Amino acid sequence: MERILLGHGAGGKLMHNLIKEMFVKAFGNPALNRLDDGAVIRMSSGERIACSTDSYVVDPVFFRGGDIGRLSVCGTVNDLSMCGARPLFITLALIIEEGFPVSDLERISLSAAKTAAEAGVKVVTGDLKVVPKGKVDKIFTNTSGIGTVKKGVDVSGSNAGPGDSVILSGFMGDHEIAVLSGRAGFDLSVKIKSDCQPLNKIVQKILCLPEAVRCLRDPTRGGLATTLNEICVSSNAGMEIDEALVPVRSAVRSACGMLGFDPFYLANEGKFAAIVKEKYAGRILRIIRAEKEGRDAAVIGRVVNTHRGEVILRTRSGGRRILGMLAGEQLPRIC
Amino acid sequence: MERILLGHGAGGKLMHNLIKEMFVKAFGNPALNRLDDGAVIRMSSGERIACSTDSYVVDPVFFRGGDIGRLSVCGTVNDLSMCGARPLFITLALIIEEGFPVSDLERISLSAAKTAAEAGVKVVTGDLKVVPKGKVDKIFTNTSGIGTVKKGVDVSGSNAGPGDSVILSGFMGDHEIAVLSGRAGFDLSVKIKSDCQPLNKIVQKILCLPEAVRCLRDPTRGGLATTLNEICVSSNAGMEIDEALVPVRSAVRSACGMLGFDPFYLANEGKFAAIVKEKYAGRILRIIRAEKEGRDAAVIGRVVNTHRGEVILRTRSGGRRILGMLAGEQLPRIC
Repeated sequence: MERILLGHGAGGKLMHNLIKEMFVKAFGNPALNRLDDGAVIRMSSGERIACSTDSYVVDPVFFRGGDIGRLSVCGTVNDLSMCGARPLFITLALIIEEGFPVSDLERISLSAAKTAAEAGVKVVTGDLKVVPKGKVDKIFTNTSGIGTVKKGVDVSGSNAGPGDSVILSGFMGDHEIAVLSGRAGFDLSVKIKSDCQPLNKIVQKILCLPEAVRCLRDPTRGGLATTLNEICVSSNAGMEIDEALVPVRSAVRSACGMLGFDPFYLANEGKFAAIVKEKYAGRILRIIRAEKEGRDAAVIGRVVNTHRGEVILRTRSGGRRILGMLAGEQLPRIC
Repeated sequence: MERILLGHGAGGKLMHNLIKEMFVKAFGNPALNRLDDGAVIRMSSGERIACSTDSYVVDPVFFRGGDIGRLSVCGTVNDLSMCGARPLFITLALIIEEGFPVSDLERISLSAAKTAAEAGVKVVTGDLKVVPKGKVDKIFTNTSGIGTVKKGVDVSGSNAGPGDSVILSGFMGDHEIAVLSGRAGFDLSVKIKSDCQPLNKIVQKILCLPEAVRCLRDPTRGGLATTLNEICVSSNAGMEIDEALVPVRSAVRSACGMLGFDPFYLANEGKFAAIVKEKYAGRILRIIRAEKEGRDAAVIGRVVNTHRGEVILRTRSGGRRILGMLAGEQLPRIC
């Protein structure tokens, strides 16, 4: 492979291989090597803090249910939450194309501020770059974040164990379909809103039972299929998912039908998968469903000790198939 | 103003106004409002940590004395250092153009790893996005970082007081001239190397005298003139700088002559200005000059209580002039 392909950024196999072969090799250290959504590090005071980073390149910048400002805050708030952390502070860096409308920048900035207030995090520092026309597509952002991890919390993609229950916090694919339907050339005639929302409050609630929660992951790029596969690989475990239990809106299902997409590979920005100990599954599910961000949550499957590293889908028609990691890219790219 | 201009990202007045009118308004909080190179925040353990973020859009990606990988690590290590922090952890986010050579990516990644090792910081998490050809100029990066601030250290752009000495740690402008001379169309026939280097070790040494150090700032975008003006505004103080004492290489001076640039507005990536109490100036200068990163350091002026918010330059020819903040953009943009 001599050139970087779009697929290297799609969140699937190509990306995982590149990260392992190039970045883990160059930078390897215990925090990085876990390849979770962020890193948990212990400070000299003994306090554990989590940090994460994410760039946002969404097109269009404004879409039904959100915009790049809201997305940038939610993305990092959620990555920190998936480390079991309470997000506190975030940074915001903008790379803007010369000629970008000031009014759009203001709209994005106010939307980010509103989302930060909603999530209860502070934007404490930032950076602003402007590049000549044609050197960047309108505006790209980066947010990084810092949170604290409470004593007793140990959440990682490598913690899943046989018998654990797999909970999904709501409908799959809303974000990707909302973004695509806002893009020129896609007349989907569906009115799906992005699910883009901060998940920190709901996650803090389930972490009141720290012994119950093994792993949290938000299925963004690469979709739920890729997320579950990552967990299976990191934990050296298998997984069985029951397709009939996985919440998908009928409008998303029909958009997928038209476009030839599989909802399991669609990006989400306000959903999470939780791997929890079986005996706590009912309690955790009730906690999640009590919040508006999680009212459509469901137990969708379980962790098993067979076919390690693989996710098996029990299909609606009663069959069984391997639900693989996203192999190349799901076109068109949205993040 | 209806459109974002290149000047909004040049580090000067336009940028400062935009940041104040848009971002401080939207996100305002005590840590952000100081507008230092990063934010210092107190954790619940009582520990103070600093965090910072910076995106890198340098063109060309490889230049004499460095590359975007080394730059990305130095930039954030130095921003944290300028907060008086000891940098510990950094994050690395890449936005790559489809078709970018894998070998170049590897070279950048190894260079960043080598620089991180040199600075003694760990890259603990990252992000990778690939966008279609034409949507970004080759590769843009972002690093964010976390460091700890020792008890007794209080370093901020707002701390300068009358009588303080202004120290510059070495030659001005090497980075900008090195980058420009690597760009197609600029045949400068000078062999200047970028000064791109981590400053954390030298800063830790001078912070062994925490009571002496009022303010640290690295003159990157907008150059030394803009940095000193920022300090004067934040501290509501004046400054007198003696042009004859400011170290500039003759090759940089002659490149500036050819291009019509003023070295005071050139970007640096391995230099810092320190505002220190006068009675410690000699000791601090000796500490800085004892390190290879600071062997050309000099006291270049002092803080005064007249003409507040302004920097006065005593010129080589014996005159006096106001050294203003970069007003629009210094063309061509390099960062």
